[in-house]
Amino acid sequence: MIHFTTAELLELPRRYRANLINCLAGFKSVNLIGTQNETGQTNLAIFNSVVHIGANPPLMGFILRPTTVARHTYQNIQSTGHYTINSVSKAMMAQAHQTSAKYEVGQSEFEHCGFSSKYLEGFSAPFVTESAVQIGLQFEEEHYIKANDTRLVIGRIQHLRLPSGHIAESGHLDLEQLDSIAMTALDTYFTPTFLARMAYAQPDQPPQQIK
Amino acid sequence: MIHFTTAELLELPRRYRANLINCLAGFKSVNLIGTQNETGQTNLAIFNSVVHIGANPPLMGFILRPTTVARHTYQNIQSTGHYTINSVSKAMMAQAHQTSAKYEVGQSEFEHCGFSSKYLEGFSAPFVTESAVQIGLQFEEEHYIKANDTRLVIGRIQHLRLPSGHIAESGHLDLEQLDSIAMTALDTYFTPTFLARMAYAQPDQPPQQIK
Repeated sequence: MIHFTTAELLELPRRYRANLINCLAGFKSVNLIGTQNETGQTNLAIFNSVVHIGANPPLMGFILRPTTVARHTYQNIQSTGHYTINSVSKAMMAQAHQTSAKYEVGQSEFEHCGFSSKYLEGFSAPFVTESAVQIGLQFEEEHYIKANDTRLVIGRIQHLRLPSGHIAESGHLDLEQLDSIAMTALDTYFTPTFLARMAYAQPDQPPQQIK
Repeated sequence: MIHFTTAELLELPRRYRANLINCLAGFKSVNLIGTQNETGQTNLAIFNSVVHIGANPPLMGFILRPTTVARHTYQNIQSTGHYTINSVSKAMMAQAHQTSAKYEVGQSEFEHCGFSSKYLEGFSAPFVTESAVQIGLQFEEEHYIKANDTRLVIGRIQHLRLPSGHIAESGHLDLEQLDSIAMTALDTYFTPTFLARMAYAQPDQPPQQIK
């Protein structure tokens, strides 16, 4: 085993450390966050930090880094209260990654990266037509992370759009069938394959596979 | 497409809704969080909400649900300041899932689920010997999420232990080679396969695959 202390991690070359630390949490979700400002200028940005917060009420969160791209997303959420979280399939991977490029103000990633927007009445943020899972959220609360100037942004699900035929009787959504991808670091993409569904764990019973 | 509004989501059966909403963020990381209380009683719990917060300083976060199992983890972190985040491989999946069973106070998931603990000098939380990636963290800050009584807990990496030969020149950790797994919902596990590593995106260039 190799052992790094905090001091040793801080001495590593910047890019090397960023890649290494970004891999430590494990596989991450891949999503596109869609917003628009008050004049109708749209923004679309890839995020790998979307996290489940709760099912009742239905809440999702994401970590907002102090970057230029992220700031458009944040400013738009602040001014309109609305944003969308859209899933990324294998076929969308390269275009979705391209949304991380620093386009100039006034240019939309929808247009430059080849995505189509869709709107629902009474909801100002654009959904990504190409995404299988399209979630419309209302900003709920945010938390400023003092340690590194980032933010946890939490929203309440107002709209959920899904292709029919992909929800199991149990409520599970078949992300593999929808060709959803996962990632590590900031640039490496993976296709997950079903391994097992486990039964609810009981202290007096050994672990049991449902399927 | 099926369309659910907030009201329609809230009318769904509880389990069905929990499974569905838990799948929406996409694939999640799988980690074991190890702690011990002031009398040396250890605790080990599976978490699917560990999220990268930043590389400089090296910070990781996780969402703590208001559950019994999670509370031991939280109480131990509060009282000692230390915890470990440990990766889960395919071979460890069933045992790791079993840590979600509600064992009685005084019983350790290390013993009941078949994991070995390891300690580093000056650091009170137990590492999981079986895990390829073993991270020791010092509690940094926490944020109470008013919307659903959960918490974002953030720690600073103090120790990082990894098997040698799995870090690329770029700093990327080969999670596929380490047999790391991903999950959806609360019970469904996946093995991710490498798809592509993309180049840093530039606004005037099309997306480019590095490998």
